[in-house]
Amino acid sequence: MRIGLMGFGTVGSGVAHILHHYREDIAKQTGGDVHIARVLVRTLERPRGTLLDDAVWTTNADDIVAHPDIDLVIEVMGGLEETRALIERALRAGKPVVTANKDVVARYGAQLCAIALEHGCDLFYEASVAGGIPIIRALAHSYASDRITRLCGIVNGTTNYMLTRMAADGASYEAVLKEAQALGYAEADPSADVCGWDAARKMAILSTLAFHAEVQLDDVATEGIDRVTQADIAYGAKLGYTVKLLGTAARVGQRVTVSVQPTMVHHAHPLASVHGVFNAVYVYSEAIGAAMYVGAGAGSLPTAASVVADVIAAVRHNRLGVSGKTWSRELPLRTLLPEEEVRGKYFYLLSVADRVGVLAQITDLFARIGVSLQSVLQQSPQLDGPVDVILITHETHRAAHAQCLEALERLDAVEHVKSVYQVLDA
Amino acid sequence: MRIGLMGFGTVGSGVAHILHHYREDIAKQTGGDVHIARVLVRTLERPRGTLLDDAVWTTNADDIVAHPDIDLVIEVMGGLEETRALIERALRAGKPVVTANKDVVARYGAQLCAIALEHGCDLFYEASVAGGIPIIRALAHSYASDRITRLCGIVNGTTNYMLTRMAADGASYEAVLKEAQALGYAEADPSADVCGWDAARKMAILSTLAFHAEVQLDDVATEGIDRVTQADIAYGAKLGYTVKLLGTAARVGQRVTVSVQPTMVHHAHPLASVHGVFNAVYVYSEAIGAAMYVGAGAGSLPTAASVVADVIAAVRHNRLGVSGKTWSRELPLRTLLPEEEVRGKYFYLLSVADRVGVLAQITDLFARIGVSLQSVLQQSPQLDGPVDVILITHETHRAAHAQCLEALERLDAVEHVKSVYQVLDA
Repeated sequence: MRIGLMGFGTVGSGVAHILHHYREDIAKQTGGDVHIARVLVRTLERPRGTLLDDAVWTTNADDIVAHPDIDLVIEVMGGLEETRALIERALRAGKPVVTANKDVVARYGAQLCAIALEHGCDLFYEASVAGGIPIIRALAHSYASDRITRLCGIVNGTTNYMLTRMAADGASYEAVLKEAQALGYAEADPSADVCGWDAARKMAILSTLAFHAEVQLDDVATEGIDRVTQADIAYGAKLGYTVKLLGTAARVGQRVTVSVQPTMVHHAHPLASVHGVFNAVYVYSEAIGAAMYVGAGAGSLPTAASVVADVIAAVRHNRLGVSGKTWSRELPLRTLLPEEEVRGKYFYLLSVADRVGVLAQITDLFARIGVSLQSVLQQSPQLDGPVDVILITHETHRAAHAQCLEALERLDAVEHVKSVYQVLDA
Repeated sequence: MRIGLMGFGTVGSGVAHILHHYREDIAKQTGGDVHIARVLVRTLERPRGTLLDDAVWTTNADDIVAHPDIDLVIEVMGGLEETRALIERALRAGKPVVTANKDVVARYGAQLCAIALEHGCDLFYEASVAGGIPIIRALAHSYASDRITRLCGIVNGTTNYMLTRMAADGASYEAVLKEAQALGYAEADPSADVCGWDAARKMAILSTLAFHAEVQLDDVATEGIDRVTQADIAYGAKLGYTVKLLGTAARVGQRVTVSVQPTMVHHAHPLASVHGVFNAVYVYSEAIGAAMYVGAGAGSLPTAASVVADVIAAVRHNRLGVSGKTWSRELPLRTLLPEEEVRGKYFYLLSVADRVGVLAQITDLFARIGVSLQSVLQQSPQLDGPVDVILITHETHRAAHAQCLEALERLDAVEHVKSVYQVLDA
């Protein structure tokens, strides 16, 4: 099998390393040699090590997606529209494609899968979500006999690293962001990570598989970690919670709801102890119950190992003559659960006037809307200034939560609502 | 597809439930109806609910393994020799087999896989290890591009429940065993669980897959939890460790070592927080690094869901004409790492005479053998009696550990060695 590799950055060089290093093992499993025949790069100027022959490098995508000597295409170059077009051309030319590109899969996954199906090729994308965790394969195969009702994931390592550091050292958001940038975990423009967009793409991919219905990127209600403060983390800890950027997807009857938002996760929940750049996906299903998958979320070798596992599967399918027949299938569009019907627990941090009766006014407000409270914590007052009050509700509809929020903001005694979080209990 | 189900206990009735309940979903995924045509039971006398037709029940195995109307066989009846013979007959008759039987797979897995390969059928056994965790599929497929170096597992829910209860409530081994029996987690004869034999079977299956070499049941050095005391648990906790019955498999070069033994697991290690009847498998590999899979270890529906996921895969393979071709392959026998070369850290609980200089004698003994100590904890002495001393070593060879143990037992000041544990750090 002659592979055309598009992209030779962190993941691409990892793929070359693994295909070289485990060449014999891979040949045993696929029944033949699997090697890189062409590599698409932006420029031929840069030195690229000695692992690959001088003849492999090209700056012309046609040498890969349109060339008869290429049997399988690996796409690890990033990008969106141009890359999608290249993947489509490869599939239309009958070449199986393995990609690690979450942007392309989240936006065009269903469309590209249909093209793959039509042309009898495999399109695999295990590495597009949580690099070192085989969650795509698990959702596609191991849950074939079950019905997933809820899925929670820590699917962005950069923000999990930042939140872990903020919780451990009391460092500020700005300080840990700089640190993450210095370590290469965060980009110069960190928005895709800290605004939750990267996590949203992954949740769209996971929930499409989990619910057998196409969840689009715009369906994911997305909020980042850029407003998470030290105070939120400290008060959360006092009440037994850790702040995590959590992707949540739930099925209610035939309707689904998917979000990415900073969440107060109870210490006793297994997701609370997933630290640093690790990723984790927690799956609840009717038959199996709770299961959790934890592993490296990114990095050259973990991601490349997922890419190559997909390559091995695609090569086997090719040799058995079943390419494109094993798990591509067309998916219906999802129906979204209306916002107001989504159920959840909420955490409020309020700044209130320090006078008698304020707490009673607030708890009365919740009672009138019909939202019951699980905990109320009032900070000991400072000289003269306002005091912080933290409230955690029991489960309620989002509509009731919105009503509480609006009423709180109108209440004279409430100076302002400092933060609001979703809550996940154990 | 007409299924012959052998066994209608906890798992068998779960399989019937899932095939009935998700019938449409399963038909969509396999491209046709999948239903239970015959069920092998010991007696026709007992009432079996209304899910299945009166005509399905039989006490004659030939109605399934030798009958032309049966396309696929599910084996969830338990047992060893007789069951192995039935599976073999089904495979020789060209019927794919899905089994949840760890005893048969641990002892005869390689042999039966070879028969399946020869007759072009699939033999799948996801449910034989950690019911609700798709670890077999992960090891067989997701690690195809990687090399596993170590695998640690909590693979027996009964003993994990017992140890969790002992640690939480200070209850004795005898008390929690009675409790586990009352709850149906432990059998009247609990030896298979508490002596570690059940975990050993699962570790033989997992390490065969992880290391691509047949690990036999006798290769697994096995020790149970029947000698774990409250004192061990309490002293462990003081030093930051939790006692778990841990399966450990490691590859050192071309040689492997596999064991099941009670282990002091450091609190910061993710396996330490796997409680109750949950199972977990921690996999270390060269490319992916650390990954962990957690889920229900047993139970009717989780196990049945794994069985049916295998059935769906087998039906798909059957329709695509690739049965028996996707991941059966003959495995070489493993070479065991000699006992004395196995490396580990150790925990010793000693009862020593309460007199000046004893601790120095003991630490000197370790120094002379060349084993360095990580921690030493001496209990405050009781009136006149002996005192407890706990030692934790740094990593060393098992040969050195054995030498220390022997020397300790010869030392006058040591009344006796109360416990010895393997140690797993974070």
